[in-house]
Amino acid sequence: MSTPIASLDTPVALVDVAQMQRNIQRMQQRMDTLGVRLRPHIKTSKCLPVITAQMAAGARGVTVSTLKEAEHCFAQGISDVFYAVAIAPGKLPAALALRRKGCNLSVLTDSVAGAQAIVDFAQQHDERFEVWIEIDCDGHRSGLAVEDNALVAVARALSEGGMQLRGVMTHAGSSYELDRLEALQALAEQERLLCVRAAEIIREAGLACPEVSIGSTPTALSALNLDGVTEVRAGVYVFFDLVMHNIGVCRADELALSVLTTVIGHQQDKGWIITDAGWMAMSRDRGTQRQRQDFGYGQVCTEAGDWIEGALVTGANQEHGIITLGTPSADMVGRFPIGSRLRILPNHACATGAQFPDYHALDVEGAVHTWSRLHGW
Amino acid sequence: MSTPIASLDTPVALVDVAQMQRNIQRMQQRMDTLGVRLRPHIKTSKCLPVITAQMAAGARGVTVSTLKEAEHCFAQGISDVFYAVAIAPGKLPAALALRRKGCNLSVLTDSVAGAQAIVDFAQQHDERFEVWIEIDCDGHRSGLAVEDNALVAVARALSEGGMQLRGVMTHAGSSYELDRLEALQALAEQERLLCVRAAEIIREAGLACPEVSIGSTPTALSALNLDGVTEVRAGVYVFFDLVMHNIGVCRADELALSVLTTVIGHQQDKGWIITDAGWMAMSRDRGTQRQRQDFGYGQVCTEAGDWIEGALVTGANQEHGIITLGTPSADMVGRFPIGSRLRILPNHACATGAQFPDYHALDVEGAVHTWSRLHGW
Repeated sequence: MSTPIASLDTPVALVDVAQMQRNIQRMQQRMDTLGVRLRPHIKTSKCLPVITAQMAAGARGVTVSTLKEAEHCFAQGISDVFYAVAIAPGKLPAALALRRKGCNLSVLTDSVAGAQAIVDFAQQHDERFEVWIEIDCDGHRSGLAVEDNALVAVARALSEGGMQLRGVMTHAGSSYELDRLEALQALAEQERLLCVRAAEIIREAGLACPEVSIGSTPTALSALNLDGVTEVRAGVYVFFDLVMHNIGVCRADELALSVLTTVIGHQQDKGWIITDAGWMAMSRDRGTQRQRQDFGYGQVCTEAGDWIEGALVTGANQEHGIITLGTPSADMVGRFPIGSRLRILPNHACATGAQFPDYHALDVEGAVHTWSRLHGW
Repeated sequence: MSTPIASLDTPVALVDVAQMQRNIQRMQQRMDTLGVRLRPHIKTSKCLPVITAQMAAGARGVTVSTLKEAEHCFAQGISDVFYAVAIAPGKLPAALALRRKGCNLSVLTDSVAGAQAIVDFAQQHDERFEVWIEIDCDGHRSGLAVEDNALVAVARALSEGGMQLRGVMTHAGSSYELDRLEALQALAEQERLLCVRAAEIIREAGLACPEVSIGSTPTALSALNLDGVTEVRAGVYVFFDLVMHNIGVCRADELALSVLTTVIGHQQDKGWIITDAGWMAMSRDRGTQRQRQDFGYGQVCTEAGDWIEGALVTGANQEHGIITLGTPSADMVGRFPIGSRLRILPNHACATGAQFPDYHALDVEGAVHTWSRLHGW
């Protein structure tokens, strides 16, 4: 039992810093090899030391999911910020304020109405926003289909309205539903091909479209070529999680985020160990529910981080986790007494992290650092 | 469109203060009529103005799910605090520190080992903790069965160790799986009967057991008599939510918490409206998934709060909500244009609230107040 961990009250969100660094290196080297910039999505960590490590490894700019993240990054000196959610008109004043302070914030739209709202607001305030157009490459959420006539109409509305069309972007979110390498490679190629094609259509219409931005962790780690792509966005690779493990893009020992918890009781006849990491700690994310292996609310490990095969968090109330061992253990209470500690690997690092005000980062010397993270909008 | 709401950036968690007050009154009057004290569980709101309203209406003491909540309540002058999760030995120093400051904090255990850890720590620090024993009334989580010999053993260990046995407590959490009044009444009676019986068993062993504490919102609102019970704990009644509505203990118009969101896009061929309230706003809670009506990630209402029949949040990414109308609408984009606003009623008020640093409370005059809430442990 390491002393620093033993001094922490539970539940806490632990980051294995050495593993996080390996995850960052792996993605950065892959993007370097494929010849594209990496613009990490910081919605996973919302945490400055993590973002700093990504930038130090070679990332260029950041992707954010909220303007609060953008403000936080800019306050720390990161000025190339892409807010990658179609902007609500009501958020344009905050986006303008950031740009007026010197932040190179770019925004997103996927409709003529959205583009027109940006243009109208910009013209009222004598601003020239940098705008991306979202492409739908797999039908999973937002974006314009490549064959949609609105694609050129949006580009033209932005251009004629005086905006700078930064480029096209897409996110192959349906990659989360796959778990075979061939299928992932095929989706990565579809993501690339459709987004590059969208840029070509805009260029064929006589408009500039300098950038092609794609990405999701599974496709970024599966793509065989990224010809025509200028940058990749990916987020969860920094920590990985059980969903990514099920998809097949990381090994079990590559998960860098876990929740440290304490045993607070047992229900021996049911084979249950009760802990203080319920859904408030793990989140309600059940992302592995329909994957090849359902991990319940998380995979149980020893305090040192070794998997206890078959042991899962099978139930969760607000501040109670219920662990079931894969094989019944007559000595369950002796093996996991009240006060003993376990680590739980989460289904989804983005959702579990959000439950905590801070990460507790374990460095290679075994020291623990408190890393604050953003909460809210 | 009310001006104050229109000035809010989205997503925000709105509290309808008048409705919250009605919910508080309803539960308090019910407990007054049944002749028991109400000790609200503040894990739902984690928010001082809400707790203050509960106390003003007649609540006596609070129930908390974390020691952070206990510290927060005590700092605000609430000293009768029951930490209703079996205490991890590692949390005893923090509990002691609170008691030394004058907080009348009581703690919980459901095992001889847990009781012994409390006694050992207390004796080392010359403290007399007030301790409750948890009873399992429905097999849903923690607690000792009434017929378990450990019940008297725990009571004796505490008593002989010099602790003050405050009483027995139980929580009929399986009430969340019911939706018929007769079944709820039967479970409420089972909760009462078993907890009262546990107290009698301890008293028959010659030990004092002054209190009998039971409760869950569904059973508290269904119980026909509470003879032998001294206090009821309930939490989610303060806001109610879609899970409670499915159970049948509140009407559709009694939900006091909603999430205000903005339309940011459409996928017309799929019948999707895209909003800025994804799972980061709604939480990943899918508590209605196995109930009589599955509300997806939430029921969609107009900005004013009127239900749009059949409109549900059927999908959620981190910052994207996907709304599907029950009946296809050819004029979907015209009815819900980009920039228009909607309110979403959540499955589970405790989980949705936790996603936000603050509530935005709408008073009867239409003014909005920012109410901060706790995050983390």
